Amino acid sequence: MENVKVVIWGFGAMGSGMAKMLLKKKGVEIVGVCDRNEARIGKSMYEVLGMDRENRPEVIINPNIDEVLTEGSCDVCLCATDSFTKAAFPRLKQALEKKVNVISTAEEMAYPKAQNPELAAELDRIAKENGVSILGTGINPGLMMDLLVVCLTGCMVDVEHIEAKRVNSLSPFGPAVMEEQGVGITVEEFDKGVSEGTLAGHVGFHESVGMIADAIGWKVDKFEQQMKPIVTTIDRKSPYGFAAAGNVAGVNMTGQGWVDGEVKIDMIHPQQIEPEMEGTETGDYIVIQGTPPINMANRPEVEGGLGTIAMCVNMIPHVINANPGLKTMLDLPVPRAIMGDMRELIQR
Amino acid sequence: MENVKVVIWGFGAMGSGMAKMLLKKKGVEIVGVCDRNEARIGKSMYEVLGMDRENRPEVIINPNIDEVLTEGSCDVCLCATDSFTKAAFPRLKQALEKKVNVISTAEEMAYPKAQNPELAAELDRIAKENGVSILGTGINPGLMMDLLVVCLTGCMVDVEHIEAKRVNSLSPFGPAVMEEQGVGITVEEFDKGVSEGTLAGHVGFHESVGMIADAIGWKVDKFEQQMKPIVTTIDRKSPYGFAAAGNVAGVNMTGQGWVDGEVKIDMIHPQQIEPEMEGTETGDYIVIQGTPPINMANRPEVEGGLGTIAMCVNMIPHVINANPGLKTMLDLPVPRAIMGDMRELIQR
Repeated sequence: MENVKVVIWGFGAMGSGMAKMLLKKKGVEIVGVCDRNEARIGKSMYEVLGMDRENRPEVIINPNIDEVLTEGSCDVCLCATDSFTKAAFPRLKQALEKKVNVISTAEEMAYPKAQNPELAAELDRIAKENGVSILGTGINPGLMMDLLVVCLTGCMVDVEHIEAKRVNSLSPFGPAVMEEQGVGITVEEFDKGVSEGTLAGHVGFHESVGMIADAIGWKVDKFEQQMKPIVTTIDRKSPYGFAAAGNVAGVNMTGQGWVDGEVKIDMIHPQQIEPEMEGTETGDYIVIQGTPPINMANRPEVEGGLGTIAMCVNMIPHVINANPGLKTMLDLPVPRAIMGDMRELIQR
Repeated sequence: MENVKVVIWGFGAMGSGMAKMLLKKKGVEIVGVCDRNEARIGKSMYEVLGMDRENRPEVIINPNIDEVLTEGSCDVCLCATDSFTKAAFPRLKQALEKKVNVISTAEEMAYPKAQNPELAAELDRIAKENGVSILGTGINPGLMMDLLVVCLTGCMVDVEHIEAKRVNSLSPFGPAVMEEQGVGITVEEFDKGVSEGTLAGHVGFHESVGMIADAIGWKVDKFEQQMKPIVTTIDRKSPYGFAAAGNVAGVNMTGQGWVDGEVKIDMIHPQQIEPEMEGTETGDYIVIQGTPPINMANRPEVEGGLGTIAMCVNMIPHVINANPGLKTMLDLPVPRAIMGDMRELIQR
């Protein structure tokens, strides 16, 4: 049986991380990489990864997706280029029209109907027309603050209130994340960034709340979210970030889903560098009031970068096996690590 | 749209618990109950449950399954009669041959191919022949020590070792469970019960280990399990159990799945009355070594009875929607609570 063939579109931290993971797995190969970063164009993927090519065919990083992604060139395209459905849409459409399955890292693509129902319907139509499927996933949205919540409600007779909290460290991340999350800036600069929409914060609460509510049959009649600075009282330093005492060490995102006039879903997601320096213990927490109640903690938190890389790669067989159309994590079997030969998981 | 129609076969703690849960849900109705317990035969299901019938049609408990379960009588049969696949098989076969979908509480049915591959293949064949599907599920096996483990590996690049531990209290359970688990007997009686096979202990490690290993692509070359008494140092009393100091308060089950010559899956499941009296904190724990690692705790544990009831009822839409055949929790979308109208979840 032939290897599962993968094209990676976008070779930043996520795309290159997926490549490293794939190169350690059996029954799968990377047949093409598309990336527009000048520093990478024309180079060997193996050189960029700092990995030995061994006896594998060469893969040269190409900025032209039309040359990388052609009909029949691969089974799945991992698209790690965007955070927002609207921005990702033209690329996802192009990949689907080459009749390849697609997995997107775009946070909003984890549940695109939450904010872009028309684009979601259009992606579903295009995927079906071309006989392939498309999924958005990652660690969050994708697992820790939504799918895992849904899975745990599976053992509940009745659900009254859901709180999902993810307390994580930004210390492993690079300069781009430091800037997006406002690490090191003053509170005034932070407030200006929030009002002008230049600070990203966490993207995905709307999607996670929509996914949970639709899964268990709650109708969300209002969604709100807030973005507040985490102000440090001491100097904090991480490999790529520094926040002086009195300045911003990260972002505290909170969100609420209202059902029947009350908050039934609470999302809490503080992200900062060096949380331990002020006594914050990182972790993923799910507290569900109902019958029977759930009180889950995973400490420390699943590292965001690795988690997203793993989720996207591990969902490859499920996406290839799925019926054509736009899929969410709610539609497919539970995610799982791939420790065997990926070919054995494909229903040909 | 018509209500989802359910027949319940076996009206003990599990069957009657499912009935109570179903009666609080929208878009679903119980159309028949089969049970052979003399005390319940001929009585109204509502009377036995101690619930008001309101304007619902009467349901009389009938010992004759041929009268309760006929072709077209229901969408799904919840079969809560057995723990073992071999014992359940004739009943499951009979239900499938009436062309109704089946959900079984039998622990071994959570992954029947682990111990009864021929019966599993036979059930798959019969289900397909009759255009329906069959699933075994529950809280454990079914979720806490297997499916949840699998789900958490979904965010992992690499898995090295899995430990699933469920520390639970037997105090909510009745006299039958006290007897099966050896609560109150002496250590000598316990050892005799183990050697003669009269103590049930926990049924399901073989199934959970098989489910986890198959899901992530490990080949289990050896499975072992042990059953040891939990000896109390003080008198312990629960509503239906009593263990004097020096006697047995419960059972500690341990199991191991060997992969490539080493133990890669460890299962630990101590069950006892009044664990708190000797400082044991109940909970569900999953520790997975690998990249990134998982260190999950759910405290206290999900109550076994309620959890099994909820899992079976909540999987009804997934089982009705599934392609024909024998299914496991690995094949279907993640379980989820049903807080809305069940009819909206059925893909007609």
